Amino acid sequence: MLKNIDLTREVAKEEYKRLKDDADLKLGCLQRQVKALGVPVIVVFEGWSAAGKGTLINELILPLDPRGFTVHSARGPTQEEAFYPFLWRFWKLTPTRGRMAIFDRSWNRRVVTDRVTGQVTGKQLRQAFEDIRSFERQLTDDGVAIVKCFLHISKNEQQRRFKALRASATTSWRVTNDDLRQHERYAEYLAAMEDMLVETDTDNAPWTIVEAHDRRFATLKIFTTVIDALERRVPAVERNAETPPTPASPNPFKTTVLDHVDLSLSLTPEEYATRLKKAQGTLRELEYEIYLRRVPVVIAYEGWDAAGKGGNIRRLTQNLDPRGYEVVPVAAPNDVEKAHHYLWRFWARMPKAGHITIFDRTWYGRVLVERVEGFCTEAQWRRAYREINGMEQQLAHFGTILLKFWLHIDAEEQLRRFQEREEVTHKRWKITEEDWRNREKMGHYRDAVEEMLHRTSTPYASWTVVESNCKRHARVKVLETVCEAIRKRLDHNA
Amino acid sequence: MLKNIDLTREVAKEEYKRLKDDADLKLGCLQRQVKALGVPVIVVFEGWSAAGKGTLINELILPLDPRGFTVHSARGPTQEEAFYPFLWRFWKLTPTRGRMAIFDRSWNRRVVTDRVTGQVTGKQLRQAFEDIRSFERQLTDDGVAIVKCFLHISKNEQQRRFKALRASATTSWRVTNDDLRQHERYAEYLAAMEDMLVETDTDNAPWTIVEAHDRRFATLKIFTTVIDALERRVPAVERNAETPPTPASPNPFKTTVLDHVDLSLSLTPEEYATRLKKAQGTLRELEYEIYLRRVPVVIAYEGWDAAGKGGNIRRLTQNLDPRGYEVVPVAAPNDVEKAHHYLWRFWARMPKAGHITIFDRTWYGRVLVERVEGFCTEAQWRRAYREINGMEQQLAHFGTILLKFWLHIDAEEQLRRFQEREEVTHKRWKITEEDWRNREKMGHYRDAVEEMLHRTSTPYASWTVVESNCKRHARVKVLETVCEAIRKRLDHNA
Repeated sequence: MLKNIDLTREVAKEEYKRLKDDADLKLGCLQRQVKALGVPVIVVFEGWSAAGKGTLINELILPLDPRGFTVHSARGPTQEEAFYPFLWRFWKLTPTRGRMAIFDRSWNRRVVTDRVTGQVTGKQLRQAFEDIRSFERQLTDDGVAIVKCFLHISKNEQQRRFKALRASATTSWRVTNDDLRQHERYAEYLAAMEDMLVETDTDNAPWTIVEAHDRRFATLKIFTTVIDALERRVPAVERNAETPPTPASPNPFKTTVLDHVDLSLSLTPEEYATRLKKAQGTLRELEYEIYLRRVPVVIAYEGWDAAGKGGNIRRLTQNLDPRGYEVVPVAAPNDVEKAHHYLWRFWARMPKAGHITIFDRTWYGRVLVERVEGFCTEAQWRRAYREINGMEQQLAHFGTILLKFWLHIDAEEQLRRFQEREEVTHKRWKITEEDWRNREKMGHYRDAVEEMLHRTSTPYASWTVVESNCKRHARVKVLETVCEAIRKRLDHNA
Repeated sequence: MLKNIDLTREVAKEEYKRLKDDADLKLGCLQRQVKALGVPVIVVFEGWSAAGKGTLINELILPLDPRGFTVHSARGPTQEEAFYPFLWRFWKLTPTRGRMAIFDRSWNRRVVTDRVTGQVTGKQLRQAFEDIRSFERQLTDDGVAIVKCFLHISKNEQQRRFKALRASATTSWRVTNDDLRQHERYAEYLAAMEDMLVETDTDNAPWTIVEAHDRRFATLKIFTTVIDALERRVPAVERNAETPPTPASPNPFKTTVLDHVDLSLSLTPEEYATRLKKAQGTLRELEYEIYLRRVPVVIAYEGWDAAGKGGNIRRLTQNLDPRGYEVVPVAAPNDVEKAHHYLWRFWARMPKAGHITIFDRTWYGRVLVERVEGFCTEAQWRRAYREINGMEQQLAHFGTILLKFWLHIDAEEQLRRFQEREEVTHKRWKITEEDWRNREKMGHYRDAVEEMLHRTSTPYASWTVVESNCKRHARVKVLETVCEAIRKRLDHNA
């Protein structure tokens, strides 16, 4: 869930002041309301050392009534606490109805720090994930609102902050040996955190990734996340809202992968011809090899309208043996399909061992078009992230190679292509009224795409964003990515 | 969940006819109603070879409209199917809205047969349990009603049936080599089935154990189970019920452990004195040993009013070093406790490593008094079985020895003790109006106790039923059971 996300987000000072004042008022008011309703609230802060947990917790509690919350600083277990199961000390700290408990680090230490240091391994690790999910599920089933924030900074930013802290005698003590070890082994910690986020990102207690380079941005993101979670628990009437909450407007603090995608990437026709040919040849050889070795491959395409999925798929399959692959175009579900679980029709089309299935649009429709157009309920699409991760994990358990491509173009390029389609006779069939309607909702779609990209980027099935303003670049990138992934797996299992 | 259950249950012919006619009508009517409501239904039959799955499925479908259901006989995967993830072929068979799919064996084969034959082990097995839970959860989240019946027969009964089948040329082909292997390795299969039942017994898709020695009993139990599950999905008005469904009357087909408990077991005062003294001495030594080796022990007492919990606990602790144990009496939760999850107060009292905690009544109040008296909702107590198993599993992960005792007396003995308490001045404090009121609801309590005993008997924390009409026997049995369990663990970890 941390892969590729844009950490450069910022908020200007004036805008911050304006938004923050409003957020303070809202939060104070919501605290009183959830107290009156008896809703217990847990806010968890996890993340990198020096990401600013302390500062941000201070910001969060300022507008709160201090009689209503407790901050718990969860360091490792004491000698005494080590004599109990690891969740025991957290059970004791769960808030009573109407109170808020804020955790500076939490029960996730066991599956990150303790894991990297080798204290928790193999079976214990899997048990710990199970225990954590069960713990959080029991609390939310009982009515607790759980908000989990993960404060993310890059390795460079962490280094910069440690340096600044150590430069002054009054702050140098704040950088501990543990912190330095984390910095040295940043990549290992990153892998463990990524795993932790995926394993414990549930519909009842989802994670919010907070880009923490800019303090103002991080503060506002945390405030809006907590406010949003509490608002869900307070009926609209109690919030004195005249109207029911409108479908969320595009969220200015959403985690983004797309914002810093370099759409200027391109290939000359000559480069394109050479690399395309080479990759197509390689893929054909790999197609035989996976057949012989009985490895199934799933290639999933999603992307904006007019991003060039069709042409891209054509180039991917151009040179393949048709007995070894199948392209599955996905449209709106028919009546029979609607009468089943939405994953049913995709399960049925998964490749058998040794074959490649290419999906032109996919099961992600649930969290894209169905979410934005209201074709499913909010509970359904929120649940879907975990359902989809579950399905992809089952495929991974079986040994499937899973590649997911998001074909990305910007709004201007899309407009240019739409207009071209309207103007050129033989392309006119490609453009409909619906494309224009979807385009108007681009903001909402963009929110949905961003959430999909980070919530379903897992260690076993991550997304590749394909810069597609230049179709040549996009086609070669997909082909080369597929070849590399298959090669890597075959070498690994050799 | 199979441990100790009474397999001798029967229904007489006349009673069967009367109940069956009624059940046929109800089932046919419910099938039409769930069809109209668009509820998809899955009925799973698992269990021993020769337990009668085929016969019982035939019974079940007779009153059904054949246009509304499909029976799937799920043998092992075909060569073709083996090229897909193991749940793939079941995804394809999930019913459309309003239809019923009946499975003769199911996706659980992977965690029973394939496990015993060594095809699925270690990590794969845990993944398979996860995949199954996720599969069932996704379906029920989507509105599918899942009914899972496990047909249980003893090893002797299985042998008897195999013999009868093999005696005749027309039926001998029905006993396969696989069946004979299962019979030879009955104990191994039993352990795997027990594990499977516990791991996949969820509030959204619980198991029903069907005692299958008597065909009439098994048939009626299956019918009532399916009817009950469907009735939950059809609103009372649609069932033409004038009144909302009354709290379930004592269920005549409940799985029972208690019915065949031998309450005549007793000890003479002399035997009692000798064995008590010996066991108390042993336990004191073990108390030091677990302290040195840092093993935590939980001893949970539940039982009927006047079953003798107090006196039993006194004998258990009489000779112990008070620094090593604690007795926690559990009454109704106070206001602070009520403001938390119901497990919170029990978590807080769990023993630290090296100590013994004895609970005089326990977290099982949720599925006993709170269920029967309506102090919690049906959803809450149904969820509680899995929550409790989850908590006990976490304790087991930590290395805790967990012993659970149900002190059992019959209604006559309880009456005798109640009357004695009223008559003897110094015992009068022990009896209240509430005891008499509870006694009136004994049937409902008994259903709750039985369900608790089988749903929460797990490989990591099983129940011991203590025959307590003779208090001397009960005290010695508890002491000796505790000693044996601790001894076994210490030897195992030596």
